[in-house]
Amino acid sequence: MMHILVLVLDLGGTFVFAISGAMVAVKYRLDAFGVLVLSFAAGNAGGITRDLLIGAIPPAAIEDWRYVVVSALAGTITFLWYPVTRRYSRDVLWLDAVGLAFFAVAGAEKALVHGIHPMMAALLGMLTGIGGGMLRDVLVSGIPTVLRTDLYALAALAGAGVVVGGHLLQVAPTMAAVAGGCVCLALRFMAIRRGWHLPSARSGHGAAPDNHDDGNGR
Amino acid sequence: MMHILVLVLDLGGTFVFAISGAMVAVKYRLDAFGVLVLSFAAGNAGGITRDLLIGAIPPAAIEDWRYVVVSALAGTITFLWYPVTRRYSRDVLWLDAVGLAFFAVAGAEKALVHGIHPMMAALLGMLTGIGGGMLRDVLVSGIPTVLRTDLYALAALAGAGVVVGGHLLQVAPTMAAVAGGCVCLALRFMAIRRGWHLPSARSGHGAAPDNHDDGNGR
Amino acid sequence: MMHILVLVLDLGGTFVFAISGAMVAVKYRLDAFGVLVLSFAAGNAGGITRDLLIGAIPPAAIEDWRYVVVSALAGTITFLWYPVTRRYSRDVLWLDAVGLAFFAVAGAEKALVHGIHPMMAALLGMLTGIGGGMLRDVLVSGIPTVLRTDLYALAALAGAGVVVGGHLLQVAPTMAAVAGGCVCLALRFMAIRRGWHLPSARSGHGAAPDNHDDGNGR
Repeated sequence: MMHILVLVLDLGGTFVFAISGAMVAVKYRLDAFGVLVLSFAAGNAGGITRDLLIGAIPPAAIEDWRYVVVSALAGTITFLWYPVTRRYSRDVLWLDAVGLAFFAVAGAEKALVHGIHPMMAALLGMLTGIGGGMLRDVLVSGIPTVLRTDLYALAALAGAGVVVGGHLLQVAPTMAAVAGGCVCLALRFMAIRRGWHLPSARSGHGAAPDNHDDGNGR
Repeated sequence: MMHILVLVLDLGGTFVFAISGAMVAVKYRLDAFGVLVLSFAAGNAGGITRDLLIGAIPPAAIEDWRYVVVSALAGTITFLWYPVTRRYSRDVLWLDAVGLAFFAVAGAEKALVHGIHPMMAALLGMLTGIGGGMLRDVLVSGIPTVLRTDLYALAALAGAGVVVGGHLLQVAPTMAAVAGGCVCLALRFMAIRRGWHLPSARSGHGAAPDNHDDGNGR
Repeated sequence: MMHILVLVLDLGGTFVFAISGAMVAVKYRLDAFGVLVLSFAAGNAGGITRDLLIGAIPPAAIEDWRYVVVSALAGTITFLWYPVTRRYSRDVLWLDAVGLAFFAVAGAEKALVHGIHPMMAALLGMLTGIGGGMLRDVLVSGIPTVLRTDLYALAALAGAGVVVGGHLLQVAPTMAAVAGGCVCLALRFMAIRRGWHLPSARSGHGAAPDNHDDGNGR
């Protein structure tokens, strides 16, 4: 049961994040194959890293061919209809929030199943959510937008935290997953709509602007 | 037998890729030690990642000291005779294609031996081939050229795919390895000579050029 | 006993490197949460990579919640009092050398305990020392300063090498650790004070300067 829950959330998140990877790849003029590679990286790096860290080896995305197929499908769709996909990039932003919620919840759930300490399980849920986006951005040599985008990592952590909290309070996993997903989505939605964000430090000196930040995924 | 085959191909590929890593390191003015580190990274990141993902832990490049020695040798040669190495950089390009073929074949073979699903074994062969070049470029903060260079990743996948096909058809591993290597080489050679390449998407907007792409390895 | 030695050195190194990660994050204007993420990455990437490579899975930094707490503490302090921290950045440089010594020694020790070949154990000690700084710099898209900073990686390797040498000569681990730490510190101190550094290759062509190098940690 929990296994199916994790699988469905994982594949859903993979699809959405693979689209975001493909869009960045097209923007940076990678060829058709590079687009597929970046789709896979963005869609699966978070889950693969989580699986390596909790000792679920080989990782699900390597053992189960469906992850590749889903990633390739998302990459192909984006590649073939990029101008169309682009026009809906605002909607992709919402989709991305849904993917983030899926991954955060699935990541925390799987870590708990593997007997990881609750606090670390919540952090692994967050990592599952932001890992793919981080690799995507590092590969095109930008600072990961997930480290700067409003409440992005925090929303993932909050969602994962709810799952872990539910586990500690012995709530049914499906309910905790739904609640965690909603918290993550709600935070991202408020951040996108209302511009909620966290403070930066008073850095006490001039800016160190990063010319590579291209706001992908924002 | 298969173990020796993988070892020879792996060490050969490591040597060639370590040279490519060292050349990039020299170009970016890393010091002698940084050159050795980048040699090791470029020569072994693909194989190490493959081993982590298939559960062959510790990875061969950590368990077996020969990988480090081969990498250090390649790095030292490149460092000491950089102007010479540079003059032959066209030949290094061909060597690099040979290394790619070695790695793609060895990677697929090893994944099969570890009982990975055939489709994933082919992809792991590709990853073994392109992983080192990707880390090399990310460390000097460029977009990985392997994601843009003509047919690079695709040639690796094709070679690995032949190995996997041979496995499914129960061809002798050595023969499948030779055939796979030849396919990979042939594709890269045509790409270099004739400029074969895959299409990019119509991105529907201006370029997002990347100033860091320095065409290393091309 | 050796376990406690590794733990203390690891946590100490984590704290210091987490500060360096947080300082870079603040400089690049990440928000409060991004600062914490980069603190954790800089403080733990080296140890996590080492643990994955030697098969100590889940890695200590995932299994033991103290690593996260120490990283978060360092990140929070840096974030809240950045102008103050910044004023003492020269002292942070010395602290960083101490962290490097801690990590190099702990990394080599742990690899030996896991039965890794001595030469590879020394290299894994080095990797433990420089891994966090490398990820930190890659995430803000610079060339890792650890690959260019004077004798940085070499000092780590020397310290780790002393630990391994002590192991081979059956010296008491604590003594070998102290000696190794001193060697690493001494090399870094001389490099900082006297400008000791390794030669670069005669690259035989114009510079390929990297605009992102911001000398963090120097």
